[in-house]
Amino acid sequence: MERFHAVIPAGGAGTRLWPLSRSGSPKFLHDLTGSGRTLLQQTVDRVTPLAGERVVIVTGIRHADAVRAQAAGVGRLLIEPSPRDSMAAIGWAAAVLEAADPEAILGSFAADHVVRDQCVFEEVIREAVSLADSGALVTIGIPPAYPATGFGYIQSGRPVAGAPTARHVRQFVEKPDQAQARAYLATGEFRWNAGMFVVRASRLLDLLARWHPEFAAQLRDLAARPEQIEDRWAALPKIAIDHAVAEPAADEGEVLVVPGAFGWDDIGDFNSLAGIMPPPPAGTPATLGDPALVTAMDTTGLVAACGGRAIALLGVDNLVVIDTPDALLITTTDRVQDVKLVVDRLRADGRAELV
Amino acid sequence: MERFHAVIPAGGAGTRLWPLSRSGSPKFLHDLTGSGRTLLQQTVDRVTPLAGERVVIVTGIRHADAVRAQAAGVGRLLIEPSPRDSMAAIGWAAAVLEAADPEAILGSFAADHVVRDQCVFEEVIREAVSLADSGALVTIGIPPAYPATGFGYIQSGRPVAGAPTARHVRQFVEKPDQAQARAYLATGEFRWNAGMFVVRASRLLDLLARWHPEFAAQLRDLAARPEQIEDRWAALPKIAIDHAVAEPAADEGEVLVVPGAFGWDDIGDFNSLAGIMPPPPAGTPATLGDPALVTAMDTTGLVAACGGRAIALLGVDNLVVIDTPDALLITTTDRVQDVKLVVDRLRADGRAELV
Repeated sequence: MERFHAVIPAGGAGTRLWPLSRSGSPKFLHDLTGSGRTLLQQTVDRVTPLAGERVVIVTGIRHADAVRAQAAGVGRLLIEPSPRDSMAAIGWAAAVLEAADPEAILGSFAADHVVRDQCVFEEVIREAVSLADSGALVTIGIPPAYPATGFGYIQSGRPVAGAPTARHVRQFVEKPDQAQARAYLATGEFRWNAGMFVVRASRLLDLLARWHPEFAAQLRDLAARPEQIEDRWAALPKIAIDHAVAEPAADEGEVLVVPGAFGWDDIGDFNSLAGIMPPPPAGTPATLGDPALVTAMDTTGLVAACGGRAIALLGVDNLVVIDTPDALLITTTDRVQDVKLVVDRLRADGRAELV
Repeated sequence: MERFHAVIPAGGAGTRLWPLSRSGSPKFLHDLTGSGRTLLQQTVDRVTPLAGERVVIVTGIRHADAVRAQAAGVGRLLIEPSPRDSMAAIGWAAAVLEAADPEAILGSFAADHVVRDQCVFEEVIREAVSLADSGALVTIGIPPAYPATGFGYIQSGRPVAGAPTARHVRQFVEKPDQAQARAYLATGEFRWNAGMFVVRASRLLDLLARWHPEFAAQLRDLAARPEQIEDRWAALPKIAIDHAVAEPAADEGEVLVVPGAFGWDDIGDFNSLAGIMPPPPAGTPATLGDPALVTAMDTTGLVAACGGRAIALLGVDNLVVIDTPDALLITTTDRVQDVKLVVDRLRADGRAELV
């Protein structure tokens, strides 16, 4: 494992978690789970037993100071001059790692996901690293807990000889509709795509070079000439690693998947956030923030008391109340996916300072 | 009308309007209707065309400074050392007025009610004053708009000879249940009791003397020795004017009622408050406070944006959201009567500073 490096892309606005998550202060900077550590810090904590100090955080210039403050002493920070999506972020880290050690193996883990079982997580990543060392592009497939329509899926195929749990990937598929999602689960072959990849740095760049040769060359060149980042970054293609590498590689049978039954969640909306909290007593809401501020009578749902003010709830079911110092959101558990519409509306109404 | 004095008892916590109304800052001190004037100021404005500068506000020591600030220049302020209910408050004013002018006529009007039609109000009070001048205890009966269970009722009887609209009162009845209220309305004889009385000051005290002779004597004595208020006030009986005088007098056929079709409301709860606001466009909530703070999508009900923060509402129907700087209430239009339970709970939980 001493050649294993954890790469943590720290980006994404998380508009469905507004007003907890803001464009200027996205969800990875927040302690959304009430653990005392932000999601970014939890991600660093999670990978440290595997990668030690070999952690690379890739974030945007806008969040660099906050990330630096939260991850003081963490291995290395790569600062993107502008957002160029995940291929540029992870590819840049890969090029930097490859330049220092041609044998380096990287695992990429988003800064704003949660994992419940650390022990299983480590076991899964160790298996993935072992497979990556043999040259594979390895992804982690989360056993689906329900027919989610908010995640992409990975269809697994035949087992990998000699590996405890890994299988070949037949294909990556986009977020399905409800019927498709149910059909996927019925087959037993589909896993949620958690966007985790484990691969040799040089192998990742070689695969990228197969479909996007200039992009791979640019990244390798930037690793050799870091002083040119400012000038040349904005010219990089804006594409997700899934589209740039994982999907075409899967089509050629070159991707493996290790099942990751470690209780993963991307906290994509407020229901997801409520789901990772300790279940509240029946007939009471789940509570984030300061529970001493909340007086709930005949009320269920989720309340985040992060505004410092008393919140009294009376006779409201399945309500989502997110109270912050400058903005209050009230919706229902049925409508949490539409919170992004509120963010859109606020922008359209000239209230961009709130989002 | 030059012998007519308006008495405005300014008291009552209005716990069903928490957190807009607080024990330390009750509803009469607030501009609940967004008119630019507080309910107390609106009440003063309403009676001034009838009483000129002959206005007496009776309030508790706790609110004296606030009342003085809001009603600067208004006739006279009587400050109760402690709350002793409406008979003591109005009776004290009556005794003070009688001492200055034995022919004085008073009309009592709560400081936290609203009236829609000023013109009709004045007409009704003029008729009541004319009847009171002849020695009657006159009350105003509000034509019931629906079978309310939150008000007491006045049953009217035979017409009063020579009066345009007045009738004799058969009885005052307490707040009915739903079935009773419907039965009352079906008779056409019942009016809401708005707690307004018009009567000669001396006649009111004489009637009080009939059932509570010592109480009446104490009030008259206090009017003569105002320096003793501090010491003797707390010993006065704590009783409503309805029970002390109006009900027994009605039983003896000595009360008249003038119908008051001037659009009255006591703003007893948030539905009542919403009802006196301009109706919002269909599918949108009624909004108090700063409408620029509110972003409402697929939402109905009432929102009070008085906390200075942005409020986003998504997919919530019949919701009541009352946002203030230190406390937020969320309930439904079905549960507004139970807001007092929230106040009770907050007191029980040691959060008395909020109520």
